Amino acid sequence: MNRIEQIYPGDRVTLREVGLRDGLQLVKSYPSTEAKTDWIKREYSAGVRHFEVGSFLPVKTMPQFSDVRDLIRLVADLDGAFSSALALNERGATDALQAEVDEIVCVVSATEEHSRANMRRSREEAVALLGKVAEASKVSPAKPVVVAGVSMAFGCSIAGEVSQSDVVRLVAQCLEAGADVIGLADTVGFVGPNQVGSLCRAVVDASEGAPVSAHLHDTRGMGIANASAALDAGIRILDGSLGGLGGCPFAPGASGNVVFEDLVYLCETKGYPTGIDLEALTEIRAIPEAEMPEEQFFGALAKAGPPQLIDWRAQKQFTQ
Amino acid sequence: MNRIEQIYPGDRVTLREVGLRDGLQLVKSYPSTEAKTDWIKREYSAGVRHFEVGSFLPVKTMPQFSDVRDLIRLVADLDGAFSSALALNERGATDALQAEVDEIVCVVSATEEHSRANMRRSREEAVALLGKVAEASKVSPAKPVVVAGVSMAFGCSIAGEVSQSDVVRLVAQCLEAGADVIGLADTVGFVGPNQVGSLCRAVVDASEGAPVSAHLHDTRGMGIANASAALDAGIRILDGSLGGLGGCPFAPGASGNVVFEDLVYLCETKGYPTGIDLEALTEIRAIPEAEMPEEQFFGALAKAGPPQLIDWRAQKQFTQ
Repeated sequence: MNRIEQIYPGDRVTLREVGLRDGLQLVKSYPSTEAKTDWIKREYSAGVRHFEVGSFLPVKTMPQFSDVRDLIRLVADLDGAFSSALALNERGATDALQAEVDEIVCVVSATEEHSRANMRRSREEAVALLGKVAEASKVSPAKPVVVAGVSMAFGCSIAGEVSQSDVVRLVAQCLEAGADVIGLADTVGFVGPNQVGSLCRAVVDASEGAPVSAHLHDTRGMGIANASAALDAGIRILDGSLGGLGGCPFAPGASGNVVFEDLVYLCETKGYPTGIDLEALTEIRAIPEAEMPEEQFFGALAKAGPPQLIDWRAQKQFTQ
Repeated sequence: MNRIEQIYPGDRVTLREVGLRDGLQLVKSYPSTEAKTDWIKREYSAGVRHFEVGSFLPVKTMPQFSDVRDLIRLVADLDGAFSSALALNERGATDALQAEVDEIVCVVSATEEHSRANMRRSREEAVALLGKVAEASKVSPAKPVVVAGVSMAFGCSIAGEVSQSDVVRLVAQCLEAGADVIGLADTVGFVGPNQVGSLCRAVVDASEGAPVSAHLHDTRGMGIANASAALDAGIRILDGSLGGLGGCPFAPGASGNVVFEDLVYLCETKGYPTGIDLEALTEIRAIPEAEMPEEQFFGALAKAGPPQLIDWRAQKQFTQ
């Protein structure tokens, strides 16, 4: 089994906890390393195996990620768990390779405008950086999997509409440059399930067997519906964050990432076993809630609990 | 055009505001008639045309519905708007017919256990009552449309699993008894999109052209995903409540009905024009929020607003 198949087995759904990275990007205060450790360990006990633990960025700008190396080491000690981190420039990529993270996410914007505004480089330069990281990964000790995280893939808060063919072309360039995995992000929560299904299917078809993940935001309440559409379109890797942590810089008070607990419930009702103990998972919300009392947490499942009396974990996958 | 086609044209999606009925069933305090009037009038101005305004029940037990006749008259004065109310016993049905409501909803439980616990009658007796109401409607001045509202259709908090064939059989009995419209309710928010799609398709197929509606609760965060699945399965009538008002007696703090605003957004992204002004709609939340400060209101769209820069109203219906 190669490294990619080890991290993302094709025969099951993988849910990635991104609350420790995307959930902490905009918060006023952030959890202590001790609390983050507790969060990861308890989620691991509940069955979570994929943790995005931070970004390699200057500690001065993003102090919430200053412990990213500690968390990578923590995850490395948990049997069968995988760590992931963002590298947004060459320095970050070098640091990520040294830290022996399991997965490096390189962000490539779907639009030229967002690429320049967000990262001060063109899309072409972003793909070139991805290529360098992929090359360096191959000769590094840990040989991390390299993910091309395509932000604004479903619509852009700067450029507006994003055409499906543009995204498919960009995905091909990323694969050509050496990306192992493609991530599609509805960064600003712009679209509904039909648009998500349509692009996901096109990208899955164009990715020649490379795993494709969906990173969806619940900004306009479509998160779970979009995740369902992504699964129906052949996506088998979904991002979420505990309590839906992770707001939107353009909409104060807006919902953040897809709620991890609700995502687990969705997958189970659709006949995709997640291996995650839903009741144990909902109890872990108490950690970020206590550490960040000024943040809003979302999600319906945590309030109601899974249904009693019925077998809510579907025994088979429903055909569409 | 007959009465049913007038209320539910088959060529478009109809969204029913049930906040004034289902949203008020469990609240501690409730809006004044003046506030309800304002709520209805402003939603009408925003484009909403279908209002479930109460239940015909003893005022002593359910004082929140004591103004049901006033609201029916109010809706009758709004051009192209339709009122609906629940009748849970013979007395209620007689009152509903006298009040000249446009639509009478008779509740039939999917399970014997819930039928007896909720309404102290068997399913057979509930269908018989529906038959009497349908007969009386035909000879009444207003000739209201009669809806069979099948509660617990997707799973029951008393009996547990509900088999699809049982629901299909019950639906056939309701149609045989004279129901004009079938409503399928996920009363306790038990299931996910695949189960919703599966049952909705079976019932649409079995209903011989009678309109079928879906009444979904967001108890476990699946509301919008389930609504999307219902639309994909051929359902063209969906219930929702402003701000998702309407909790669950079995889960304190749990989410209520599908959020009306998010539902509008979903339909528009799927290429089903609703005729509803989303920005105007979200502003109306202020009315129930001010009248019921102790209630929790839900929904993501109201916080973020519709996306800027992109054409979020899909111009065509996406094929699946």
